[in-house]
Amino acid sequence: MRLRNKPWAEEFINEHPDVILPNPEQCKGNWATVFGNDHPIHIEVGTGKGQFVLGMALQNPDINYIGIELYDSVIVSALERIVEANKPANLRLLKVNGAKLQEYFAKGDVSRVYLNFSDPWPKARHAKRRLTHEGFLSIYESVLMDQGEIHFKTDNRGLFEYSLVSMNAYGMALNYVSLDLHANMPKDNVMTEYEEKFSAKGQPIYRLECQFK
Amino acid sequence: MRLRNKPWAEEFINEHPDVILPNPEQCKGNWATVFGNDHPIHIEVGTGKGQFVLGMALQNPDINYIGIELYDSVIVSALERIVEANKPANLRLLKVNGAKLQEYFAKGDVSRVYLNFSDPWPKARHAKRRLTHEGFLSIYESVLMDQGEIHFKTDNRGLFEYSLVSMNAYGMALNYVSLDLHANMPKDNVMTEYEEKFSAKGQPIYRLECQFK
Ligand SMILES: C[S@@+](CC[C@H](N)C(=O)[O-])C[C@H]1O[C@@H](n2cnc3c(N)ncnc32)[C@H](O)[C@@H]1O
Ligand SMILES: C[S@@+](CC[C@H](N)C(=O)[O-])C[C@H]1O[C@@H](n2cnc3c(N)ncnc32)[C@H](O)[C@@H]1O
Repeated sequence: MRLRNKPWAEEFINEHPDVILPNPEQCKGNWATVFGNDHPIHIEVGTGKGQFVLGMALQNPDINYIGIELYDSVIVSALERIVEANKPANLRLLKVNGAKLQEYFAKGDVSRVYLNFSDPWPKARHAKRRLTHEGFLSIYESVLMDQGEIHFKTDNRGLFEYSLVSMNAYGMALNYVSLDLHANMPKDNVMTEYEEKFSAKGQPIYRLECQFK
Repeated sequence: MRLRNKPWAEEFINEHPDVILPNPEQCKGNWATVFGNDHPIHIEVGTGKGQFVLGMALQNPDINYIGIELYDSVIVSALERIVEANKPANLRLLKVNGAKLQEYFAKGDVSRVYLNFSDPWPKARHAKRRLTHEGFLSIYESVLMDQGEIHFKTDNRGLFEYSLVSMNAYGMALNYVSLDLHANMPKDNVMTEYEEKFSAKGQPIYRLECQFK
């Protein structure tokens, strides 16, 4: 068993430049070249250990997925999972900050943003860090195609309440809301790590889909 | 004990024309005369047995409340309650259909609409009957002052999900959402009959405030 220390993580990441892209700035506006096709691109901001983005990539071969995760120590778990699954051709990871999407994506590069179990930042003074704060919404808007969508799942009541208000205030159309996703589980729902953990505890999972106008 | 038959209800209603107004069409645009002051008017559509509207009237003497209920058999319970509380001067009932508010209120007569535990009408083909359907929203808008508010509480998940989407689609601003009102019970929350019943069963109570723009 390999040790999860920093140098190992770095090394493992560097060994798989076909999954975790080493020069993501160069992909901006050139994603069709990266994937070898012009299928729609769906990104997940805050991918964690990658269970969702891998599951989605296997389920939907005609969509290109990019999982975005800030931390080496976390993204290596996603990378391991993807290597074990033989590196699906429609899946990449970016080890970058979701606050800087504009460095890696041109307007229109992305068709959908997934946010799953984003850090709740419950204190009011940290509201700007929430991935559904208007500052982040404007970042997503600047890389999404027109009428691009955000799909958001969480167990965190406070974050979900905040997000409904924030997305409405931004002028987004709310296309779908579930306040207990697992009560009528959609057949094609791909569970995230956090989703498995919190739903096992009996907590309701909230989900919404919204769209820039 | 008096029997709750129809003739009795009618008689009891007719005995209290100072609470259940007999000619509500004549109040349209003249509510300041009815109440003897020009305080803001808050209406509840689907008042049921009146616990909420009476509690609110006692809590907020500087606001005028009007409870609107369609059925004789239900509104008599509200009337009994109000008679027992010595008929607060800032409270009236209307035995009319919420779908016809425009017959009783001119544009701007109303500052706020309360909807509490409205009938859920779960079947899609009955969506138009939901009190948060766009048809009803446009009725509320036509009697509310500019930037008038709707405050809505329910235990019904499906109705609340529907209402969030419907209000957003109508272009309303969502000012507040709680997905478990009783988890952080506001000090001034006045419980409705249904709220007591469903929260005792451990069901979460949903609440929102929204506003026409
Ligand atoms: C609570 S975890 C959820 C992980 C996964 N989405 C799930 O549902 O199981 C949130 C993840 O988002 C990552 N994250 C937080 N802020 C980020 C940002 N600005 N850019 C990229 N990743 C971020 C964190 O490092 C963490 O791995
Ligand atoms: C489920 S009860 C809730 C009663 C009360 N608001 C509570 O929270 O306990 C709904 C009430 O709305 C009334 N109602 C339904 N549609 C109405 C309408 N169009 N106009 C007036 N009242 C209506 C029904 O008669 C019923 O008494």
